[in-house]
Amino acid sequence: MIIFQEHEIRELVQVDGEMIQVIEDAFTSLVTKRVAMPPIMRIDIPENNGEVDVKSAYISGVDSFAIKVSSGFFDNVRIGLPSLSGTMLLVSAKTGLLEAVLLDNGYLTDLRTAAAGAVAAKYLARENLHTVGVIGAGAQARYQVLALRQVRNFERIKVYGPTQSRVERYAREMEEKLGIPVSIASSPEEVVKESDLVVTTTPSKTPVIQEEWLHPGLHITAMGSDAEHKQELEAQVLKKADLVVCDVKSQCFRLGELHHALEQGVLTEEAPVAELGEITSGRRQGRKNDQVITVCDLTGTGVQDTAIALYARQKLAEKGYGLRLEPK
Amino acid sequence: MIIFQEHEIRELVQVDGEMIQVIEDAFTSLVTKRVAMPPIMRIDIPENNGEVDVKSAYISGVDSFAIKVSSGFFDNVRIGLPSLSGTMLLVSAKTGLLEAVLLDNGYLTDLRTAAAGAVAAKYLARENLHTVGVIGAGAQARYQVLALRQVRNFERIKVYGPTQSRVERYAREMEEKLGIPVSIASSPEEVVKESDLVVTTTPSKTPVIQEEWLHPGLHITAMGSDAEHKQELEAQVLKKADLVVCDVKSQCFRLGELHHALEQGVLTEEAPVAELGEITSGRRQGRKNDQVITVCDLTGTGVQDTAIALYARQKLAEKGYGLRLEPK
Repeated sequence: MIIFQEHEIRELVQVDGEMIQVIEDAFTSLVTKRVAMPPIMRIDIPENNGEVDVKSAYISGVDSFAIKVSSGFFDNVRIGLPSLSGTMLLVSAKTGLLEAVLLDNGYLTDLRTAAAGAVAAKYLARENLHTVGVIGAGAQARYQVLALRQVRNFERIKVYGPTQSRVERYAREMEEKLGIPVSIASSPEEVVKESDLVVTTTPSKTPVIQEEWLHPGLHITAMGSDAEHKQELEAQVLKKADLVVCDVKSQCFRLGELHHALEQGVLTEEAPVAELGEITSGRRQGRKNDQVITVCDLTGTGVQDTAIALYARQKLAEKGYGLRLEPK
Repeated sequence: MIIFQEHEIRELVQVDGEMIQVIEDAFTSLVTKRVAMPPIMRIDIPENNGEVDVKSAYISGVDSFAIKVSSGFFDNVRIGLPSLSGTMLLVSAKTGLLEAVLLDNGYLTDLRTAAAGAVAAKYLARENLHTVGVIGAGAQARYQVLALRQVRNFERIKVYGPTQSRVERYAREMEEKLGIPVSIASSPEEVVKESDLVVTTTPSKTPVIQEEWLHPGLHITAMGSDAEHKQELEAQVLKKADLVVCDVKSQCFRLGELHHALEQGVLTEEAPVAELGEITSGRRQGRKNDQVITVCDLTGTGVQDTAIALYARQKLAEKGYGLRLEPK
C-alpha cells in the first residue's frame, strides 16, 4: 500500500497532451470495452451547503480501478478553504485489496474534468477559433482553458463572472500564462455572442446561457452541472444545437443539462444525443462543418477518475515517489 | 490528515460492550435523527469472482462521516489472501475535506457486522439460550459468537460448514476462546433443530435453512446476504417467523433475504417487517415471549460504518496513534 501526496502529484501530473490523451482513451473505452461504471453515490449536507460524490469505474481487463471521493462545500471560501476537494483510492481488480491512496485534494479531478473539455473541443469545435469565452472564474475556468490550448489555438479570451475582483484576477493570471489578451465581459450574453467556443464552469442553479444568443459555428461545453438542481444552459439551447454530445447519457439525463431538457419536454431520451466516446472511437461523427452549432454536456465520469488515477500512479512510481506502508 | 494502520486499530478497537453499544446507537439514530444514507454503490468483477461495495451515511449534526470501501474476492483463498478487505475514509461534514484514512483491511467491517448481530440478539433472542448454532466457519462465524457473548450467556455451540478442516479449526479455536464445548454438526438441519439461536454467515446463493426445521423460541440472524444473488434462508422461513426484523428495509428488500421473499410473493413490501432501529429506539417491541420465532436480516449499513469509524478514531486519538501527513 502506497500513499501519494498532493505536492508529488502536482509535480508529475499536469495539463498536457499526454494527460488529455489518457482521458480521451478513457472515453473511447466506454464504447469499445466492457466498463462497469455504477451510478454516482451522493451524500448531500444541505445545512453546510455541501455535497460529496463517490465515483468509480472498472475497465474490463485493467488490473486496478479507482474509487474517487469528491466534495463541494460552497461556504468554504468564507473560511479561506477551497470549495472542492477529493481523494482517490486505487483498488486491485484481482484481489480487492487497496493498492494506493492519492491524497490529491481534488487536483486530479480538476485535471480530468478539464481534459474532458479539451477532448470535446478537439472533436466538436471549429478548427479555427478566434475567441474563447469562459463563464465562471474559478479553478475550472483556468484548467479548461489550459487544456483547450493543447488541442486548439485561439487569439483571445473573453470571461464573465459575477465577482469583479475574481474575474480581474483571472484575467491577469491567464494573460500572463497564455500570452494572449483576456478581456472582461459585462454579461454572459456578451461572452456567447462574441466567442467561437464557450465553456461554462459554474455551479449555477439557473440557466446562464440563452438560446437566442447562439450563432453559427459556436461550440459550447457545459461542465458545471453534475446534480439535478444545477443548470447552466436554457433547455432550448439543446434543441437549437445541431449536435448534442454528452459524457454518459444515463448520467446526463439524470444530472446534467439533458436532465432539464428532458424534464421540460424539449428533448426525449430517444433524441439523437451522442456520447463523447462514440465520437472519440470514430463510431459517430463530430463537427460536420464550420456552421453547425454543437453542445457538449459534461457531468464527470468514474472512468475518467480510474484513467487519471492509473496514469498518476504510473508517473509517480517511475520516480519512486510515495510513502509505502507495510502491514506490521 | 491522519492515517491509522490496521495493527493500531486492532490494538484499541475490539469486540466489547462499548463497541456494541456504539452500533446499537447507530441503529437508533436511523429512526431518531435525520440520516442521509445513499444506496450502496457496487462494482462487480465477475471474471475475478469479486465485488466491491461503497457505503456511507451522514448523521445530521455529527461533524464527520465515513465512506467505506469493502471488497469480497472469493478466489483470494487460493493465493493465501483473505477474501474480505476494506478501507474507511472519514470526511468532514463541515468542509468536505478528508480527515482520516483507516487502513483497517476490513477489520472494522467485521466488528460492526458482528455487533449488529449482537444487537439483534439482545432484542430478539430468548433470555436463556442453551445452544447457539453457527453456519459457516469463517471470520464472521467467529466475530458473531464473540459479540453475542457480550449480550447473552450460552452453554454450547453447534457449527456447520462445508469444509471439514475449516470447521475443525473453528471448533478448536472457539472452545479455547470461550471455554465451552463446540460440536460439529453434520448438516445445517442439525444446527437449526438443536439450537435456540442460529447465525448464518455464508456467501451462499441457495438457501441453507429450510422452513420445516424452525421450532418455537428460535431466533435466526442471517448476515450473509448483501447482494441480489445471495440467499441463506428459504423464503418461507420469513413467512413462518412471528417477527421479521431487518437493518434497513429499502436495502433488504433489494439485497437481503427479504428480496427473495418479495420476489417469490411470500411477503409484500407492506408486510409488518420492523427495522432494528425501531426496536432499539423502543418504538416497536422485540421478542414478546419464549415461544415466538424471530428472524433478523442484516445487509450491513453505512450508518454502522460511520459509527465505528468515529469510535475508532476517538480511541486512536486518545492514545496519540496515527501518522499525520501535513501538506507541503
